[in-house]
Amino acid sequence: MPDTLHTNALSRLTALLGDRLVTSDADRRLHGQNETYYPNTPPDAVAYPETTAEVSEIVKICADTGTPVTPYGAASSLEGQHLAVQGGISLDFARMNRLLSVSPEDLLCTAQPGLTRKRLNEDLRDTGLFFSVDPGADASLGGMAATRASGTTAVRYGTIRENILALEAVMADGTIVRTGSEARKSATGYDLTHLLIGSEGTLGIITELTLRLHGLPEATAAATCRFPSIEDAVNCVILTIQSGLPMARIELLDHMMVRGFNRYAQADLPEEPHLFLEFHGSAAGVAEQSAAFREIAADFGASGWKEAVKAEDRNALWAMRHSAHYASAALGEGRHIWPTDTCVPISKLAEAVTWAQTRAVEYGLTATIVGHVGDGNFHVGLSVDPEDAAEMARAHDYTHALGEMALKLRGTVSGEHGIGIGKQDFMVREHGSAVAVMRAIKQALDPAGILNPGKLLPPA
Amino acid sequence: MPDTLHTNALSRLTALLGDRLVTSDADRRLHGQNETYYPNTPPDAVAYPETTAEVSEIVKICADTGTPVTPYGAASSLEGQHLAVQGGISLDFARMNRLLSVSPEDLLCTAQPGLTRKRLNEDLRDTGLFFSVDPGADASLGGMAATRASGTTAVRYGTIRENILALEAVMADGTIVRTGSEARKSATGYDLTHLLIGSEGTLGIITELTLRLHGLPEATAAATCRFPSIEDAVNCVILTIQSGLPMARIELLDHMMVRGFNRYAQADLPEEPHLFLEFHGSAAGVAEQSAAFREIAADFGASGWKEAVKAEDRNALWAMRHSAHYASAALGEGRHIWPTDTCVPISKLAEAVTWAQTRAVEYGLTATIVGHVGDGNFHVGLSVDPEDAAEMARAHDYTHALGEMALKLRGTVSGEHGIGIGKQDFMVREHGSAVAVMRAIKQALDPAGILNPGKLLPPA
Repeated sequence: MPDTLHTNALSRLTALLGDRLVTSDADRRLHGQNETYYPNTPPDAVAYPETTAEVSEIVKICADTGTPVTPYGAASSLEGQHLAVQGGISLDFARMNRLLSVSPEDLLCTAQPGLTRKRLNEDLRDTGLFFSVDPGADASLGGMAATRASGTTAVRYGTIRENILALEAVMADGTIVRTGSEARKSATGYDLTHLLIGSEGTLGIITELTLRLHGLPEATAAATCRFPSIEDAVNCVILTIQSGLPMARIELLDHMMVRGFNRYAQADLPEEPHLFLEFHGSAAGVAEQSAAFREIAADFGASGWKEAVKAEDRNALWAMRHSAHYASAALGEGRHIWPTDTCVPISKLAEAVTWAQTRAVEYGLTATIVGHVGDGNFHVGLSVDPEDAAEMARAHDYTHALGEMALKLRGTVSGEHGIGIGKQDFMVREHGSAVAVMRAIKQALDPAGILNPGKLLPPA
Repeated sequence: MPDTLHTNALSRLTALLGDRLVTSDADRRLHGQNETYYPNTPPDAVAYPETTAEVSEIVKICADTGTPVTPYGAASSLEGQHLAVQGGISLDFARMNRLLSVSPEDLLCTAQPGLTRKRLNEDLRDTGLFFSVDPGADASLGGMAATRASGTTAVRYGTIRENILALEAVMADGTIVRTGSEARKSATGYDLTHLLIGSEGTLGIITELTLRLHGLPEATAAATCRFPSIEDAVNCVILTIQSGLPMARIELLDHMMVRGFNRYAQADLPEEPHLFLEFHGSAAGVAEQSAAFREIAADFGASGWKEAVKAEDRNALWAMRHSAHYASAALGEGRHIWPTDTCVPISKLAEAVTWAQTRAVEYGLTATIVGHVGDGNFHVGLSVDPEDAAEMARAHDYTHALGEMALKLRGTVSGEHGIGIGKQDFMVREHGSAVAVMRAIKQALDPAGILNPGKLLPPA
């Protein structure tokens, strides 16, 4: 039995959950894994609740005994948000993964937090509707809400912030609350829905989500093209967004990212900067958008236009795009990826991307660049060996300078990955005196600090 | 000198502001007015700050002396949010009404809270951009943010919630904070921007706003048509929204509202249910949308299709629509309007509107119905005489039943007007245990309760 988990808490949790409270080394280590360079951080025990009432009981026991509780979905978060860094309970939503209801007539559905976005879209297949938020990984909906996820389609359909109507959550004392309603909008009271979204499980544990759905577009076309330079590609994106073209997806890949795809996914693409695109609308609308985009792209020297209209071709394209994390890793055998998540105002994008690419070379780092550039968001993926202290120090210095650059350009150090354990150093730099307001809210809602401690807010 | 304002506070505020701290009866009474049936509620004094630093100093003096401070914009709020119901200072942003900067290349601008939305759009005229949120009244931007305003175009462009990127605010201890950034999205820390939006000045005082702008559509067409029954009109709306048509505006008027427009604005419309519409897009897109809508409308017996394509004709149409409050009042000379603000899931709209219309007649009330029905939001405007106690009691009972009906249909008692002093009875009914969370946040951020006391949260 782990040291840090009180005997009292363990016996009460076991009485509540039976064999759904697991303390085996294997399961603890599994829950200590992550996709990036953080070391394995096992919790003391893993709880598998089946109902909101059970989550509430678990949190009450944790509150009584001062036991940390860290929500766990698909473990695809990139800043260690799901890691129980102060021990305690990993609250795994694997058994709360059901689609509870679909209201096609209201373009919404209600789901449990452990359901993943791909499963949700499979379940919706016969409704003519889809859930738009697509962070790449097959993330859990609860995790996506908690980390304020977005991804490739946010440029058209918004981030998860714009696609959640209501939440159910368990607060630090075990109280179950409901926020929002099924109406499209409301002006009644403080916006607790948006306060919980992005709070990384530190203010409340999301136990149910009411999500906005969108009608499948009448027509969809994907396309790729390449540019003579990364500046040309980015300037094409800037003009496209400024001109108001309703892009469904507009993704940048630098030549290193293309090389990664060639190695990892046998893509056989010319190793030049590319844009991957998607258009949604009526058949005429898609044709109009595509033509308008190509006119802009031509001014920036675009070539190699290839369309993917059939569903399987489009799916293959986006599956490749979504493998960027692993494709970046493929550039160096056995190496890990240190992901970054800069987001700047669209007019600053060329400056930011050029800076990022040039400086990575200067720092002697192997890096890919890929991004949801329609939102001004791009990821530098640094290939690192956690055992190589000198390289890790260079990566640290680079990411620090990258964050400072984003803030100088009036942007943010994280467009979608969040703070977790990896970006706390930036909180005061980005938010200044507002961090004290955040601390006051955390203190008011979780005075004992049992909800996902060690995340989001820097140590006082 | 008013009783409730400490001599100490008054002398310190006068030292700070000179003749910009006003205690004349005339100015106090002016700041006690409102658009609806609430009695005049003058503050003890009116402060006219010119800078954020001055707002901070004012709040510090109020904090020191326990003086309530109530932000004041254009006084167009409909639930008395701007009324100093516990006395103290009315903080009038008339002198903080500048457009500070416009970044056409980033589709955003930064403005002071006293700037009104119409002035903003006049200032933006040469940029090809516009600020989309249109609550009808020429509201101040600070007031719109504080009350989570929306209006006719929210169905396409979102409410103010989706159109604010960043805020500056003065907290209850005078601290100046900045929330958000100029990036389109961010996942760094608690969403204080959305916490302040809709908080009605009870958590912080907004002193600067960074707003999203939209490109003026290449083509715009407005249109009106009428329906045999209100059910037909509403069912047409429901199918239009469910089919995903990107309506820029879709407004319902019942026959009583049309009668009001005929009297107030000499509209000369047949006194039948109408929809007022607007389409935005490319020329081809607008034609396509308009044709698709007319096909749906024909199935519900629409007739009398009239288009308004020229800007002056469209402006005249929407100016009339925006006079709904006064047109409702025109149905009974010298009477006041008791506005309501139901918002329900779109599939429940026909049930809700029919209920509202039928019951108003049963309660013996004169009522108009008008609404942003694409969002499921509609306003019953009750014509009342505040001196007629029996009628006021019927109006109270009706609005109470209307709110209960909205909640039963999984909607909200207020889509856009807010809680203010008028809807606090509904807070626990709508939000249940979440009200305790809201109270904890209020207590944490404004422990002395000086920020707009008596609003939003019901008495403990």
